[in-house]
Amino acid sequence: MRIGVIGGTGKEGRGLALRWSRAGHQVRIGSRDAARASERAAELRAIAGAGDITGGDNAWAVSDAEVVVLCVPYAAHGETLRSLAAQLAGRVLIDITVPLNPPRVREVHLPPGHSAAMEAQAIVGAATPVVATLHHVSSTHLGDPDHAIEGDVLVCSDHEAATATAIALIADLGGRALDAGPLRNAVALESLTPVLLHLNKRYKCSAAALRIVGLPG
Amino acid sequence: MRIGVIGGTGKEGRGLALRWSRAGHQVRIGSRDAARASERAAELRAIAGAGDITGGDNAWAVSDAEVVVLCVPYAAHGETLRSLAAQLAGRVLIDITVPLNPPRVREVHLPPGHSAAMEAQAIVGAATPVVATLHHVSSTHLGDPDHAIEGDVLVCSDHEAATATAIALIADLGGRALDAGPLRNAVALESLTPVLLHLNKRYKCSAAALRIVGLPG
Repeated sequence: MRIGVIGGTGKEGRGLALRWSRAGHQVRIGSRDAARASERAAELRAIAGAGDITGGDNAWAVSDAEVVVLCVPYAAHGETLRSLAAQLAGRVLIDITVPLNPPRVREVHLPPGHSAAMEAQAIVGAATPVVATLHHVSSTHLGDPDHAIEGDVLVCSDHEAATATAIALIADLGGRALDAGPLRNAVALESLTPVLLHLNKRYKCSAAALRIVGLPG
Repeated sequence: MRIGVIGGTGKEGRGLALRWSRAGHQVRIGSRDAARASERAAELRAIAGAGDITGGDNAWAVSDAEVVVLCVPYAAHGETLRSLAAQLAGRVLIDITVPLNPPRVREVHLPPGHSAAMEAQAIVGAATPVVATLHHVSSTHLGDPDHAIEGDVLVCSDHEAATATAIALIADLGGRALDAGPLRNAVALESLTPVLLHLNKRYKCSAAALRIVGLPG
């Protein structure tokens, strides 16, 4: 698959690009600064040793992709989506945004639309199915392609096919993905991240995550 | 400890009373119907074979307790708390309420105050520290005192001593409790319950729960 990563020069972009390119996907690193995205893509190609990773501006990364992942801080979430809404039509949007409210990142901050993902769906409209996921994976673990993803990856969407696409792509990252219900359940996923950050501080660890127990098999 | 259970004749009350009485606590089953609470307490004493379990109306169960657990459906949450606010002063209130919106119990429903626990704290005021916890334990598992509690039990409160009390009481139930931060994080805990109910249906199981991984030791 061809996957565009908006804000792909950041921490999450590294792991997504390395893991997905290794799984045979084509990765398009997007940034507001096209030159920086190209440099970053070259760095990641060098690290990967092989794989199809290229960079350009965000609009290009979206236009050239079937699936788009949004990796920007919440402060840039709405503006970024509004500027790319036209290009996003017809593509699956995977929104990994957690609406953190720095510096109080260990306390839940509910945005006006209840979750970043529901705000995203409202902005991009029905032509772009939004999937909320990947809120609980440590970017450090993700960025090391040989590090196991220990927690489960919960996936919310109102579109069955988009959920299935996301679950398959998460398997290609090395994670176990679970269908966590409709997009309105994204508030549960997003608000759990501050809880995990609190657990990290409270119990002196760096990558608390959750695993679902009690499933069959 | 003397523990009052408001709405204690329901599913959760059984497990709480059996497990806490076995751990040596005194349990006061409360109900709107004092006679029903007394009968229920007698049944539970018979099941337990020993232990201090008695029943009466909710106001009595609160007044006679150091710690009070609120086990009513969300539809009765605000009214119950308003009617007991005076008696609750000076006691720790453990609120296990999930603001479900039947019949759509597998979709997150955010109440006006964002979480039942924050609504509870606003109703009872500063004289009653509120702790939000026990949203993810299957009442069927809880009700069988010999069944292990497989998931972790997350605890939120703005009061350190109340958090510590709740964590100790959850250990006495047989669960591993973790400090999940301030009361505003309760929205994460409460909204995860519809996700677990969705997972139960989606993956054909009955007691999906979460375990935190990545903690030291």
